[in-house]
Amino acid sequence: MARASLREKIVDAAVECFHAQGFNGCSVQDITEAAGAPKGSFYNHFKTKELLALEALTRYRKESRTAMLFEGDKPPLQRLRAHFEFLAERLEGWKFERGCMVSNFGAEMADAYPDMRRALAETLLVWSANIASVLRQAQAAGDLSKDKDPELFARFLVDAWEGAVNRARMVKSRAPFDEFLIVAFKALLA
Amino acid sequence: MARASLREKIVDAAVECFHAQGFNGCSVQDITEAAGAPKGSFYNHFKTKELLALEALTRYRKESRTAMLFEGDKPPLQRLRAHFEFLAERLEGWKFERGCMVSNFGAEMADAYPDMRRALAETLLVWSANIASVLRQAQAAGDLSKDKDPELFARFLVDAWEGAVNRARMVKSRAPFDEFLIVAFKALLA
Repeated sequence: MARASLREKIVDAAVECFHAQGFNGCSVQDITEAAGAPKGSFYNHFKTKELLALEALTRYRKESRTAMLFEGDKPPLQRLRAHFEFLAERLEGWKFERGCMVSNFGAEMADAYPDMRRALAETLLVWSANIASVLRQAQAAGDLSKDKDPELFARFLVDAWEGAVNRARMVKSRAPFDEFLIVAFKALLA
Repeated sequence: MARASLREKIVDAAVECFHAQGFNGCSVQDITEAAGAPKGSFYNHFKTKELLALEALTRYRKESRTAMLFEGDKPPLQRLRAHFEFLAERLEGWKFERGCMVSNFGAEMADAYPDMRRALAETLLVWSANIASVLRQAQAAGDLSKDKDPELFARFLVDAWEGAVNRARMVKSRAPFDEFLIVAFKALLA
């Protein structure tokens, strides 16, 4: 029981450290110190630092609340917008000091860590498939033109969002999110 | 003279190493080894590793050929498309094993390195200002609706491109570039 709890503390600390400093920017020692765990205990719980990063990614995915795309009774495009607003507010709450963990890991790990690369590709695939579902609902409701390919537009939206998140971290402002919302909802999906 | 040449070799090696492995993913020793330079010589030329990364960024900007946006006598939107095609082919030539150096540095360095953060923000600002100029030319030529704010659309396009580049590295295919080109030129700018 204590053992499980220490493991959990290491994952908590890893989510924080990896997200703020990047995979290569924080060491196993940084993470165990932040978790209040002896450094030697790390390898009792994780065979490699990459496996811990994969678990941090899983946690990050859960906290990104993709399920809210399908919750409530608002029209589909309003639910989609609310999802991006939620993500924007979370990033603003972090004072633009961390980007999207998916893009961050992608930039650092996509080539040296094939398991991570596959996990990242799958993360974006699932996310854009969910967005595509919402776009199809919007088409069924007559709120989106049927000549727009939902899968294609969903993947494009995810790319544009990820780029906006990276830029927000550079300019330290939510302007990139607001610009994303204007172009996405007033031009692309209008 | 030999001294200048060694410095140049270090910058060459840094562009390669930083682009392929990231800022934290390669050490000063990795770079000097790749340059065939004694490790001790590094600090004769660069006060910090960050200053070398800033110089690598400057080199990367030059090689990204933004000037081609204004070259030749093709219509503005065709020049814009040719620019993105050039970038896509370059990334494909690298077998999708490196993303955009601007996004990569952003993900790793935007918070711990304020000078780099400012340089990255400025890089995207200049790039999107150039794209906005082309969009204004397209509007003047009657090829783009005047109700589209050129600056806003240019920044959005840059974000979407950067996201596509990151995803291409994850999926190891140019599909994200082709999807960018379809949505950008057949929907957003149509």
